Amino acid sequence: MKLKARLYPIEANRPIVVMNEEDAKDLGVFVSGRVKISHKDRGVTAIVDTTTSFVKEGEIGIFEDVRKLLNVSEGSNLEVNETTRPHSVEFIKKKVDGYTLNEDEIMAIIQDIVDNNLSNIELSAFVTAGYVKGYTMDEIVALTKAMVETGQQIDFGNNIVDKHSIGGVAGNRTTMLIVPIIASTGLIIPKTSSRAITSPSGTADTMEVLAGVEFDIDELKEIVNKTNGCIVWGGSVNLAPADDRIIRVEYPLSIDAEGHMLASVMAKKRSVGSDYIIIDIPVGRGSKVISIDRANNLAHKFIELGRRLNISVECLITDGSSPIGSGIGPALEARDVLSALDNKGPIDLIDKSLDLAGTLLELSGKVVRGKGRGIAEHILRSGKAKEKMMEIIEAQGGDPDVKPEDIEISKKKVIITSEHKGMVRYIDNKLISTIARASGAPRMKSAGLYLHVKTGDSIDIGDPLFTIYSSTKSRLKEASRLAHELSPIRVGSIISDIIR
Amino acid sequence: MKLKARLYPIEANRPIVVMNEEDAKDLGVFVSGRVKISHKDRGVTAIVDTTTSFVKEGEIGIFEDVRKLLNVSEGSNLEVNETTRPHSVEFIKKKVDGYTLNEDEIMAIIQDIVDNNLSNIELSAFVTAGYVKGYTMDEIVALTKAMVETGQQIDFGNNIVDKHSIGGVAGNRTTMLIVPIIASTGLIIPKTSSRAITSPSGTADTMEVLAGVEFDIDELKEIVNKTNGCIVWGGSVNLAPADDRIIRVEYPLSIDAEGHMLASVMAKKRSVGSDYIIIDIPVGRGSKVISIDRANNLAHKFIELGRRLNISVECLITDGSSPIGSGIGPALEARDVLSALDNKGPIDLIDKSLDLAGTLLELSGKVVRGKGRGIAEHILRSGKAKEKMMEIIEAQGGDPDVKPEDIEISKKKVIITSEHKGMVRYIDNKLISTIARASGAPRMKSAGLYLHVKTGDSIDIGDPLFTIYSSTKSRLKEASRLAHELSPIRVGSIISDIIR
Repeated sequence: MKLKARLYPIEANRPIVVMNEEDAKDLGVFVSGRVKISHKDRGVTAIVDTTTSFVKEGEIGIFEDVRKLLNVSEGSNLEVNETTRPHSVEFIKKKVDGYTLNEDEIMAIIQDIVDNNLSNIELSAFVTAGYVKGYTMDEIVALTKAMVETGQQIDFGNNIVDKHSIGGVAGNRTTMLIVPIIASTGLIIPKTSSRAITSPSGTADTMEVLAGVEFDIDELKEIVNKTNGCIVWGGSVNLAPADDRIIRVEYPLSIDAEGHMLASVMAKKRSVGSDYIIIDIPVGRGSKVISIDRANNLAHKFIELGRRLNISVECLITDGSSPIGSGIGPALEARDVLSALDNKGPIDLIDKSLDLAGTLLELSGKVVRGKGRGIAEHILRSGKAKEKMMEIIEAQGGDPDVKPEDIEISKKKVIITSEHKGMVRYIDNKLISTIARASGAPRMKSAGLYLHVKTGDSIDIGDPLFTIYSSTKSRLKEASRLAHELSPIRVGSIISDIIR
Repeated sequence: MKLKARLYPIEANRPIVVMNEEDAKDLGVFVSGRVKISHKDRGVTAIVDTTTSFVKEGEIGIFEDVRKLLNVSEGSNLEVNETTRPHSVEFIKKKVDGYTLNEDEIMAIIQDIVDNNLSNIELSAFVTAGYVKGYTMDEIVALTKAMVETGQQIDFGNNIVDKHSIGGVAGNRTTMLIVPIIASTGLIIPKTSSRAITSPSGTADTMEVLAGVEFDIDELKEIVNKTNGCIVWGGSVNLAPADDRIIRVEYPLSIDAEGHMLASVMAKKRSVGSDYIIIDIPVGRGSKVISIDRANNLAHKFIELGRRLNISVECLITDGSSPIGSGIGPALEARDVLSALDNKGPIDLIDKSLDLAGTLLELSGKVVRGKGRGIAEHILRSGKAKEKMMEIIEAQGGDPDVKPEDIEISKKKVIITSEHKGMVRYIDNKLISTIARASGAPRMKSAGLYLHVKTGDSIDIGDPLFTIYSSTKSRLKEASRLAHELSPIRVGSIISDIIR
């Protein structure tokens, strides 16, 4: 059926078209059904809304998501056809029924995810079944390869190294120290990072305070060729794009299926040709992985998956029971990082970064075992890491002369003080994140909170625990209210639970 | 936030609003997020699409589904608020994680399904988890009660009887004989039926050839009070409305979760106050239940669920290996039914209807055990059943003088003949349904097919197997092509499979 495009600038986050009921009937599709729309050499599968009057017969309403995918203009002639359920839905059903999927079946599903051919209903069934039933290592290998093949790939040559952190720890901007340390040794580290989904800042959000983070693949190559490293937002490069679609469904369900997570981490690394990877698995209260057993199990899966993909992987199980660094929120974290590069920043952030960088240097064979951390420390102290970071910031369009105090922090603030005297027992990652998000981070770059204490400090009643920063009164008020309600920092009592 | 309604007559099958990006930002919601919209005493949760220009700041685009739910007019002032994830999503997550849900948790989920508060992603996770993990009998009881309580209920007094068939058998219009037989004895049988989803006709589609089937609750009461029975479409009365929403998600996934099925069948019966129910479970090739073991298991669950709801249930395991009756498609089936009421119709349709009606008469205590079928047969032979059916047809707005030959069948036809000589071994329900749907049924009422043979008949090469009817040449052609390709009727060979 030929229909004339009528454009409507509406973003729906999924491909929607509006058809006149008569045309829909003629085509044999109903509301919520699917049609295949073709225009020149492009095609897209879209969900059908219907109307008796909004769009006339012979026309088709095109929302923004479809317009972009098809690159159509007002009045373009489109070929519209009924489309059957994608074949991959059968494989999703197979997984739902508890069977193991083979490589071809997984490839078909991932391809349809990337091509936007699956409805939210189908995608959610896939994600739920994968979470409930789990995946075999063969399936995870196939998922990884399918994610890589359905996205862009970049070849930076040999000796490519990378790092990844499982997340869940507030602050924790180690990437922004590790990348310059590693890059200054001549190793290549094309690091792509994420933006915050549930946290007050992702590495990409924090880096964005200092430089641009959205680049296409050619710009990315230029930056890495110039500096040996980069710290960019993975979402702007089209690496393993299936991952974003899966996360968009997992997030509202609070599902984090291990198989998908393993595959998505490794697929992003494989897409840039990494040879050596270290993975940071923080364990403890309020972080993503709570037990050591689970951390060990996950580590072995990462290593096995690496082996199957010809990538050397080492996992570091780290203390994830408290935030790392003092600032929480993009600007506050960026300040921490710049101070750390001057060898003055939070000691825990420096410690952890040196550990990770040192291990990566050893794993890559650049440095003999046992010498990594020392060499990493030397690179930081000598100012070489700072010099390299400024090169990267400049290559990414930022100011290479930026100083910690140049970074703007919100003017409105509230200091939260201790109501108890005693030792700081814990600083809960999740609760700290909740308060920082309430203050406006990550969208409000200058908002967040600054920790004045660390676990183990002895403090008195009235001593400052943390300062909350925000640009709006209402957000500051809400964040303060939460700070009092949630008590994210425990002072004094050593009891973690009472069993009666 | 107060916004002015701008109406757009677009049907999306889910509540959609379009907000200007600036308003969305101010409210703190993003595309695909949720807002609560209030107008006078009504409220609805809707999904947000965003725009920079289609809707101005201060306005909100309202699609048809939301307009109906809120009953708003162009320019109405609406209160729009950010809404958090419904609490019931946590319970869905709990089910996904393998835990059993309690009554309150199930009630919260079903209420949110009925109130349209759950996204397709969340609903699909619920359906998938229910299918994968299954439900305990306690959960099924709670599901049933929640479905009943979130819909309308009707009190017809005592001695209310009902029947249900699990489906999957083509033809099989026993309801249209059982209802008049039962109603003519003085028992009350307020039967609600479904329209076809995957089949060539549902009982409601076939009844619609003879009378109206869409009535509100007051009209329904009037019909039943007048005639002791009815045969109406369940979707027009608001009985257990959660069921339709769940099926809308199950259908594209080809999922038929047993727990949901048990609950939805019993909830619809409970909503009209049924005391005695018989359930037909057809077993065999091409029907929904393939093994006797599964049929037995299902039967015991229905009986136990009935016991918990204070309803007497008997299940009849019937031969579901072939279609019942000769006509397949609304008009052709309606003809069969009218002929059967004249005691001339397909013998298998009459046989099965008498068995079911007889059992229901015995179960209700109206007739002593062993006498049910005989009395049912007498009611049919005496013409009382026909008389009652004509009363019901008249009460539902149809013509009480209708004759089988009055019913219009499509003029265009093709006769499919046998290529073999031998005995008819089987007539595959699924394949017959596929061909009948290709001919245009159920939307084209006069289309479908007519079976000239029954399993066990001895036939020769060239003997007619079935006739396909359709109003359009293209559909007739497609249905014939499928008939040749699928060979739904096996003649001769007794081999069902060869194992090598």
